[in-house]
Amino acid sequence: MFEPLWKEVGDNATVTISGWEKMSYTSCDENICWFLEPEFASEVLRLHKIVNNAATNGRHIIVGVGSTQMIHATLHALGAIKDRHPVNVVSAAPYYSMYPGIVDLMKSGLYHWAGDAAAFRGDDNFIELVCSPNNPDGTIRHAILGNEAGKRVHDMAYYWPQYTPMRGLADHDIMLFTLSKATGHAGTRIGWALVKDKEVACEMAKFITLNTIGVSKDSQVRAATILKVISDGYEFPKPNGAVQFFHFGRHQLADRWRRLRQAVEKSGQFSLPRFSPEFCEFFKEHAETYPGFAWLRCEDQKINDCEGFFKRINVLTRSGKYFGVGPEYVRISMLDTDGNFDAFIKRISSLDS
Amino acid sequence: MFEPLWKEVGDNATVTISGWEKMSYTSCDENICWFLEPEFASEVLRLHKIVNNAATNGRHIIVGVGSTQMIHATLHALGAIKDRHPVNVVSAAPYYSMYPGIVDLMKSGLYHWAGDAAAFRGDDNFIELVCSPNNPDGTIRHAILGNEAGKRVHDMAYYWPQYTPMRGLADHDIMLFTLSKATGHAGTRIGWALVKDKEVACEMAKFITLNTIGVSKDSQVRAATILKVISDGYEFPKPNGAVQFFHFGRHQLADRWRRLRQAVEKSGQFSLPRFSPEFCEFFKEHAETYPGFAWLRCEDQKINDCEGFFKRINVLTRSGKYFGVGPEYVRISMLDTDGNFDAFIKRISSLDS
Repeated sequence: MFEPLWKEVGDNATVTISGWEKMSYTSCDENICWFLEPEFASEVLRLHKIVNNAATNGRHIIVGVGSTQMIHATLHALGAIKDRHPVNVVSAAPYYSMYPGIVDLMKSGLYHWAGDAAAFRGDDNFIELVCSPNNPDGTIRHAILGNEAGKRVHDMAYYWPQYTPMRGLADHDIMLFTLSKATGHAGTRIGWALVKDKEVACEMAKFITLNTIGVSKDSQVRAATILKVISDGYEFPKPNGAVQFFHFGRHQLADRWRRLRQAVEKSGQFSLPRFSPEFCEFFKEHAETYPGFAWLRCEDQKINDCEGFFKRINVLTRSGKYFGVGPEYVRISMLDTDGNFDAFIKRISSLDS
Repeated sequence: MFEPLWKEVGDNATVTISGWEKMSYTSCDENICWFLEPEFASEVLRLHKIVNNAATNGRHIIVGVGSTQMIHATLHALGAIKDRHPVNVVSAAPYYSMYPGIVDLMKSGLYHWAGDAAAFRGDDNFIELVCSPNNPDGTIRHAILGNEAGKRVHDMAYYWPQYTPMRGLADHDIMLFTLSKATGHAGTRIGWALVKDKEVACEMAKFITLNTIGVSKDSQVRAATILKVISDGYEFPKPNGAVQFFHFGRHQLADRWRRLRQAVEKSGQFSLPRFSPEFCEFFKEHAETYPGFAWLRCEDQKINDCEGFFKRINVLTRSGKYFGVGPEYVRISMLDTDGNFDAFIKRISSLDS
């Protein structure tokens, strides 16, 4: 969805790497995260400062292969520090459908998936994954398990101004971000974590060392280039009013959400989450919420399987049952290409109401 | 060590990626390995055909974040298929010092490190890692556990003409390679596997999907560019005799090994492995073996800790005890920068004999 903007940006976002550059495993011997490219780290810090979405002071930056590897690294680090195993990993439903598969992938003795945080009845032997704004439903989330001795990981992939009003600096112990949701560059496979505790940061870097011996330098260099273009667009705005990334993204998403809400209303068969406008500290005005996914509920009692219903009209969705709730829900991407999104709206609009 | 060659190659090895390119997670929907870039896959096949070092017909190519992730993916795939857990993972000593750490990283319930293959007394519930040419000692290895029902993984990172005479097409069930050893581009973090069995290939791709949701497209594109330069150098040799990669690599390593053997002989305190020349089907002549590591034995009975001995003269080595043998051995990289290698030779040469 962000591709047209990057075409408009042109050469500034192009990365060029010579055959003899970036050949070594190592980026920075002195850093806990010895495979972190300094130029990537500094662009991460710079963009967080401009957007003011996450506290960076005194934080360790750990880079990973997407936020997926960051989740593995985090669970491993927190699991290694805990003294009772397996640690229960939970998240409030509806939760990101890949959490259970990611958590149990390794069949680790350190931790295991324990389902919906709201149904958790254990003591402090837990790690709560807090996804905010939440995938799939776009809501702002807070940890729901109160026991201080438990651990929390904040997955903040969507805490960027195109998706949700910026409510100020998030200041959690472990915050995860990913280039794919921030800028649209999923293929680059770059995620990062801001980590308060040094021991946890060390354990995360150790995990990535033995999982993949670091993270592609080429991708880190490219990510730095991409982040720089976004930051430059706000720190040095062009007199001719060149496109600014978060403005463009919000505009695109606003348009898509308007069209989706219209089509859904016309059909009369579904409902979508509603969000109140909130003051956005980035845009300095009241702003709407435009999640990266539509979390759609089939209100028609005759439709037992909402995913199957959409499959019959050639719309790819993911059933609510994978998110810890019922099959009356589906998740649909709002970030697909223009062509695919247009086809989706056309198909919903053609349903008899 | 290969950096000077890549400087000489110049622009042909440069990769350029625009901001709007390679943004998607997906490379090729129809492939088992849906995140495999087609241009990378075709350059892998092309180079294997030119070097004739590994059978590719009917093989599935799986790409990973370095050969380290390939090892995780392979163990996971073979472990998932086996019906008794944990499966014992073994390798004949001296084995690659990272194998134990990689195998036990996940604390997986599916498999665990069980040490030296030569000491294994179990039945068929094993996976043998066969590293050939072997890291650390450069020897050509064959599986040593005969039970057909066990599983074997051939780690062939160093089976390239700069290191060892090419003895013809390797034809094993699972063969692992990595760009870092083939071309010197460790920072690109690209490994690949050639896999005979479709079920194993599927399980490996599934593992990588949930571990990192695929592999950096930028790195795959860069790897394709690098591999293409090498293949072009042999398929379309320039009339002015431009440098050919494997010739350059062999020449460099030959020179380093000559200097090392001279210095070691002069010191009289150490020994190195000896290799007989063999016919190399790539160079079409008898060729020496030039391993990527020197596997050095301290012959002086007064030196109990060879690693500590070298540390005192500022030479970084890795003790034999990490490779499943005694501290009278150390492994020293032969692939370091020219400056570091020169310093190492100087320090050895300055020892009293």
